[in-house]
Amino acid sequence: MPTDADQTSEDVRSRILDAAEALLRRHGPDKLAVTDVARALSMSHANVYRYFGSKTDLFQQLVRRWLGRLEAPLAAIAAEDGPAADRLTRWALTLHRQKREKVSADPEMFAAFDKAADRAGGGPVEAHLDALRDQLRIILEDGAAEGRWPGVGPTSAQDVFTALSPFSHPAVVLADGAADRSEQLRRVVRLLDAGLAAG
Amino acid sequence: MPTDADQTSEDVRSRILDAAEALLRRHGPDKLAVTDVARALSMSHANVYRYFGSKTDLFQQLVRRWLGRLEAPLAAIAAEDGPAADRLTRWALTLHRQKREKVSADPEMFAAFDKAADRAGGGPVEAHLDALRDQLRIILEDGAAEGRWPGVGPTSAQDVFTALSPFSHPAVVLADGAADRSEQLRRVVRLLDAGLAAG
Repeated sequence: MPTDADQTSEDVRSRILDAAEALLRRHGPDKLAVTDVARALSMSHANVYRYFGSKTDLFQQLVRRWLGRLEAPLAAIAAEDGPAADRLTRWALTLHRQKREKVSADPEMFAAFDKAADRAGGGPVEAHLDALRDQLRIILEDGAAEGRWPGVGPTSAQDVFTALSPFSHPAVVLADGAADRSEQLRRVVRLLDAGLAAG
Repeated sequence: MPTDADQTSEDVRSRILDAAEALLRRHGPDKLAVTDVARALSMSHANVYRYFGSKTDLFQQLVRRWLGRLEAPLAAIAAEDGPAADRLTRWALTLHRQKREKVSADPEMFAAFDKAADRAGGGPVEAHLDALRDQLRIILEDGAAEGRWPGVGPTSAQDVFTALSPFSHPAVVLADGAADRSEQLRRVVRLLDAGLAAG
């Protein structure tokens, strides 16, 4: 059970991340300095370092939180009870829409976070991709349990994720002008659905 | 039937492209100037412009020729008589290997051509992608004629190409450190094979 002290600590962490995200949006990743984050919160930079061991750690948590926001609605679809094939379609369409929105609604922010993600090292991005593959694994295993997808095996989540990645990979979505390719995505999902069903 | 004059003309075009490619390799796309190409061939720049209407045209032909070299071995696989599923696997593996080689064997050259491709506009790249999709269409239609793939329809070549693109898209291959993902590619091809077979 969390204590009051834990909650306060979590609250301070969250406020530091809010301030850092606001500065990142305003000035870009190159100018994000721990001292500016501390000043924005009227806090010593030593205090910021109590919560984040280094600037890299702060970057990593920031990127992880940003990418984590995408995961919640997708996790909800993965956790539903309905037919797996329908959930696979909605999961893939939602991910495609989210990535297009990130690229098109706020391209500067997308670029800033993309650069911040580079600086943060592969950690937060890998954690995001792992979370998405885990969601896909839940849907595929449910489809196997339904008897619809006898072809589901240990690598299926990874393979289906890769085959669908042209609809969510930031570099591809960006190169594509964030175009809405939902119709093609539905067809590719149907093809994979049929392949998994064939076993 | 080509005349001697045509052959000579084709030969001059080819020599101009050779010189431009050598300069691109040596100095990068930013410094590629028509006057330097002409000088390397002891030819007036007006003569270069007789063969290429503009520097953009020269860039486009250069990128088209470079990408065209990748297409020949793939076209040969598409044109074979053997079972379509086997040809699809070899076609996809060959494309994956080629793109990894381009990225890893000669990263500066890859970057230079990538930049030149940007400057050339989408034309040469689109022509390359169209050629690859046409090859895939031949294989898929052969598989439909064999009776193996009743699921092949008007958009199948485009859809299968997209699902396989994570193994050949330059940005993805580059971000991936040109890693050999042949094993996963085989699995994705098997999944698509099963999906097309299900109809």
